Amino acid sequence: MERNTVSLFETIQTLLDNKRYSTLRDILNTMNPVDIAAVFEDLQSEKTALLFRLLPKETAAETFVEMDEETQQLLIHGFSDTELKEVIDELYVDDAVDLIEEMPANVVKRILRQADPQTRKEINEILKYPEDSAGSIMTTECVILRPKMTAEEAIKRIRRTGIDKETIYTCYVSDASSTLIGIVTIKTLLLSDDDEVIENIMETNVISVNTLDDQEEVAQMFNKYNFLALPVVDKENRLVGIVTVDDAIDVMEEEATEDIQKMAAITPTTDKPYDRIGVFETYRARIPWLLILMISATFTGMIITGFEDALAGSLVLSAFIPMLMDTGGNSGSQASVTVIRALSLDEIEFKDIFKVIFKEARVSLLCGVTLAAANFAKIMLFDRLVLGNTGITVQVALVVCLTMVVTIFIAKLVGCTLPMIAAKIGFDPAVMASPFITTIVDAISLFVYFQIAQAILHL
Amino acid sequence: MERNTVSLFETIQTLLDNKRYSTLRDILNTMNPVDIAAVFEDLQSEKTALLFRLLPKETAAETFVEMDEETQQLLIHGFSDTELKEVIDELYVDDAVDLIEEMPANVVKRILRQADPQTRKEINEILKYPEDSAGSIMTTECVILRPKMTAEEAIKRIRRTGIDKETIYTCYVSDASSTLIGIVTIKTLLLSDDDEVIENIMETNVISVNTLDDQEEVAQMFNKYNFLALPVVDKENRLVGIVTVDDAIDVMEEEATEDIQKMAAITPTTDKPYDRIGVFETYRARIPWLLILMISATFTGMIITGFEDALAGSLVLSAFIPMLMDTGGNSGSQASVTVIRALSLDEIEFKDIFKVIFKEARVSLLCGVTLAAANFAKIMLFDRLVLGNTGITVQVALVVCLTMVVTIFIAKLVGCTLPMIAAKIGFDPAVMASPFITTIVDAISLFVYFQIAQAILHL
Repeated sequence: MERNTVSLFETIQTLLDNKRYSTLRDILNTMNPVDIAAVFEDLQSEKTALLFRLLPKETAAETFVEMDEETQQLLIHGFSDTELKEVIDELYVDDAVDLIEEMPANVVKRILRQADPQTRKEINEILKYPEDSAGSIMTTECVILRPKMTAEEAIKRIRRTGIDKETIYTCYVSDASSTLIGIVTIKTLLLSDDDEVIENIMETNVISVNTLDDQEEVAQMFNKYNFLALPVVDKENRLVGIVTVDDAIDVMEEEATEDIQKMAAITPTTDKPYDRIGVFETYRARIPWLLILMISATFTGMIITGFEDALAGSLVLSAFIPMLMDTGGNSGSQASVTVIRALSLDEIEFKDIFKVIFKEARVSLLCGVTLAAANFAKIMLFDRLVLGNTGITVQVALVVCLTMVVTIFIAKLVGCTLPMIAAKIGFDPAVMASPFITTIVDAISLFVYFQIAQAILHL
Repeated sequence: MERNTVSLFETIQTLLDNKRYSTLRDILNTMNPVDIAAVFEDLQSEKTALLFRLLPKETAAETFVEMDEETQQLLIHGFSDTELKEVIDELYVDDAVDLIEEMPANVVKRILRQADPQTRKEINEILKYPEDSAGSIMTTECVILRPKMTAEEAIKRIRRTGIDKETIYTCYVSDASSTLIGIVTIKTLLLSDDDEVIENIMETNVISVNTLDDQEEVAQMFNKYNFLALPVVDKENRLVGIVTVDDAIDVMEEEATEDIQKMAAITPTTDKPYDRIGVFETYRARIPWLLILMISATFTGMIITGFEDALAGSLVLSAFIPMLMDTGGNSGSQASVTVIRALSLDEIEFKDIFKVIFKEARVSLLCGVTLAAANFAKIMLFDRLVLGNTGITVQVALVVCLTMVVTIFIAKLVGCTLPMIAAKIGFDPAVMASPFITTIVDAISLFVYFQIAQAILHL
């Protein structure tokens, strides 16, 4: 895909330089708005407005919403008020809102001035809802039917008003007080007799979300129930809008990225693509956790200092510190990441904590024993014989392998418990992932290491 | 949601024990198939078949596909051949295929025997495609129109045949040789005049996927183009089926989970939920990488052994080893995870590698200097004054902080380069995440540490 857009891009640029507008129009007509938008983003020049004027009105709007904010701003800057109005009128309300949320104040003023009063009212409605709420990602444009209508009347209404609705595939049935009382899909409508009455064919146990529900929750419901659209209602169960599956998909991806970032000790910032995030922005997103984790590693240092004499007594022990720390860290992350993902997919919840602990305990013993055995063989055969490190006695190998079993056991328990507790007390479990676990496990494993060492080697 | 299903579950169980079947039927009628399925999974008893018979035929099938395989098998076991046939006939082909792929051979035989010849043929068609290919997740049931039809004829056809199509919202136009020549949405159909001819209103630049394309690619296209369904064609561009957005969403989630697992050094196995995966299965998924990473930590050990004398000379150095290793590891993971995610979202590709390196280099210097400064202060004020560790001289602090700058620089470069190279040579970048990077960075940082130490402290 990518490469396509690119090579095509050069052609378009040349044609643009040679003013071959009719050819350009033909090419653009064969392209999907998403791909056209990509071309515009790469173009980034005063020529964009020129190229944009070659697009048919509807395609123009569809292309516009797919562009990144820089390009959009560049275009709006070049627009005449009439051109701007044309685009705004073609936009769906939720897309208009997204646009406004990204534009600087002066541009926003200009956009709102061009939007027709009704649209402006709806835009301001949606802007009122908190970020990441269902209300903030919904659109107000949906097909609303009345319970007493016949299938035929309903279809007539859709054919009359459907053109500027984001989806016509699910229709919403509300009573006089605009309370949501049912939904009916266009499939049902088309497959029932013309004189069938809506209230007899509509689905009455409607699953809906509240305007203030978190967008992640909304996305999970799409995932769970395979909806194409989900109605959004206010506290009085009045229908205020719908969320469509394409927006839900964007949310899913956004949330997945956020989780992954948190798991890697990155503070999630924008949902901008990698190549559009500046160096300082990246720095600000990464430095806080690095600092916190660095400082908390102090304890690990203190433990080593505390056992300095023991270490001096048998310096060979220090050679195994990195391996023990890493293995502990990795075992811990495996458990934590698995649990975090299971939590965010609603596969487990806090009440399952003991089931989880019991399972991780058994897994950790299996892993611990396997690794200890492998490690014992490796130490005696490789480190001692091949490398001829005479400092490595059977006792030393024993200390290392015992530590390994204990460390992995603790690591997995900490790894699976912390995220669940975090979730319980309302923190984001994802923050309890690898780096955090590692720091804790490091300290523990070192402490265990030296305790066992002193016991067995009598340091 | 969860909790709802649970408390409701007890009610249902009691009603079932008291044989209150009509009440049960009423309750089930108010529930969504997904939630009913959840009840069945928790029930896990000979009573399931009993409860299942209370469901209306269509709901029964919808509920059946939402259950996990254990419950499905339990039910099929209790089914009479007629009951089984009823369910199979109600299933969409792609769901039937999913079912068959999960059932043991003897059950599969029984299912195929009950399926009507046409369905059996289609099932076997799909089963031929490799796992994770577009063909394997598609359904063959879609509305196919001819270019010369009028909108009215098209709608008539949909109303006649639509009932057993998975989606009727996008219709596919193919010529006599069943080559895909265009698509038309039911929205377009409904909004155009009755005597409008399909070939004049259909979208001719159709974006489609090949039967053998990877399912991840397919999911990405849904994400990019906001489709509700995507046509699947063979090498001769003949329409063989469609993938619907709900299946694409499942793939997205599956792939996200897989990436997250790989990033945590877990071999992705089944897409079963956490609580359904056994201890040994979990063990098998986690042990390989733990072993590999443990063994590769040998080098880190060898480096320490190599510098044992240096270490003996100034034992205080060992106290900072964990902190340096962790900080290096964390910096590396931040870079690698960010790049891996950007790669899998097509935000960057191999040709951007130098842009990426340049950016990460600048970020790493900013992070390195900040952390080194903070660390210097911390060492001199806390470790030296507060803890009164006299072994810590300005030189030692200098060694530690210099190492930190260098390590973070290297860590970020390794972290951003390896995944891109992996992707280039056809490996999965996700495997190049935290644990792998950590092991490499550990060795490097220790080596740098001791080099700088020898230079400055003249050990």
